[in-house]
Amino acid sequence: MDERPLILVTNDDGINAPGLKNLVNMMYKVGDVVVVAPDSPKSATSQSITINSPLYVSRCYNHSSAKLEYQLSGTPADCIKFGVNELLKKKPDLCVSGINHGSNSSINVLYSGTVGAAIEAGIQGVPAIGFSVHDYSWDAKFDHMEKFILSISINVIKNKLPNNIVLNVNFPKSETKGVKVCRQANTHWEEKFWKRENPMGKEYYWLTGDFINNDISDETDEYALKKGYASIVPIKFDLTAKDYIQELKKWDFNG
Amino acid sequence: MDERPLILVTNDDGINAPGLKNLVNMMYKVGDVVVVAPDSPKSATSQSITINSPLYVSRCYNHSSAKLEYQLSGTPADCIKFGVNELLKKKPDLCVSGINHGSNSSINVLYSGTVGAAIEAGIQGVPAIGFSVHDYSWDAKFDHMEKFILSISINVIKNKLPNNIVLNVNFPKSETKGVKVCRQANTHWEEKFWKRENPMGKEYYWLTGDFINNDISDETDEYALKKGYASIVPIKFDLTAKDYIQELKKWDFNG
Repeated sequence: MDERPLILVTNDDGINAPGLKNLVNMMYKVGDVVVVAPDSPKSATSQSITINSPLYVSRCYNHSSAKLEYQLSGTPADCIKFGVNELLKKKPDLCVSGINHGSNSSINVLYSGTVGAAIEAGIQGVPAIGFSVHDYSWDAKFDHMEKFILSISINVIKNKLPNNIVLNVNFPKSETKGVKVCRQANTHWEEKFWKRENPMGKEYYWLTGDFINNDISDETDEYALKKGYASIVPIKFDLTAKDYIQELKKWDFNG
Repeated sequence: MDERPLILVTNDDGINAPGLKNLVNMMYKVGDVVVVAPDSPKSATSQSITINSPLYVSRCYNHSSAKLEYQLSGTPADCIKFGVNELLKKKPDLCVSGINHGSNSSINVLYSGTVGAAIEAGIQGVPAIGFSVHDYSWDAKFDHMEKFILSISINVIKNKLPNNIVLNVNFPKSETKGVKVCRQANTHWEEKFWKRENPMGKEYYWLTGDFINNDISDETDEYALKKGYASIVPIKFDLTAKDYIQELKKWDFNG
């Protein structure tokens, strides 16, 4: 490649998140960086998009290593749609989302705005990766991930990805022993709701819960993370359960 | 089954949507209905959940055929988490979401709050169906769907569904010839952003676009809908692209 690759960067923790700053600085070592990120935190917004209200877009100058940078009043998936189709008006060579403050492994992938953005980029035909670290702290450490993030990103630029596949990459909180290609662990949350009163005496609920992993296979992302490795799960957005189509065709829907 | 089945109903168009009212009335013919729905429209919220703010819950009396009914200040997926784990504290026999005012076929499944709720129910181990109609109007007609919605729902209660699979059901705008089991069509949107000024003279963007379907197979949901049939796509929420794992393992991540 004669020119430096063009890399679109977004996240779901918002334009001021340290995870974004770290990812932008890492990507600057690989190519020309354009940032379009939400103007406020949008955690757990999945692949939400904004269809019933307008979007406001402002030029930003937070990241000196970014060639161009905007904040947008929408979701991570909105940022990708806007970045690719309105701002760049061409497909970047890579889209990366993150580094998310908090894990998006196993079932969490479904709620993740970080991965929602990566999937959106995949739909747009852009090779895409979501990066997350198993540390919810705003002061999370990112140095231990750099060499792997660079390696994975360069691999994706070089090898591309098949249409309809993006990568969900998660890192352990600290030292990373290497990278494992995994499948999504079969997990769930046991939800509990806190029930309390607000300062006006009005009852509210707050979602919380315990993470349950009964998937003991050593091929899962949760296993890799527990053993100190970064997990890479190739994910697809054709949700069809193909194996079940024949069974379902036997049902009588006219009964 | 001695007792009437317990059916949890939600949607993403909000507690006052005609599509919800119609679905509640239909489900009353099948079992005991409990409604937990968003207190305002939450279209295109995908599988978003509310983790950084409290949820307010209020008893409602909109639907005389519902045994119990609540509106909640969160997303469709929040409604399922609350309904199953806090309100009912047991798994209903069926969860249905919809009837969405607007199609959730093909790629639209990913953005759909309606289907997000159904997937959430699937994660909770509840057999679940998302119903949508290819008509965005608040005055959409629902009568032509009733016999099929009843048949599909009764089938799911009787046959259950495998763990990790839920049904995404879409109806054409008017007369429905029958039901076809399909795969998700491979489509995308060609995004365009309107650029205008608000009353204060501030520039805004509004997401719009053209729906592109280059998937000519007769096995897709789009094909079935075009031919006047309801489409049923079994969908899964293990996103792993299993076919690609071996290929990805060949990449050198230490380079």
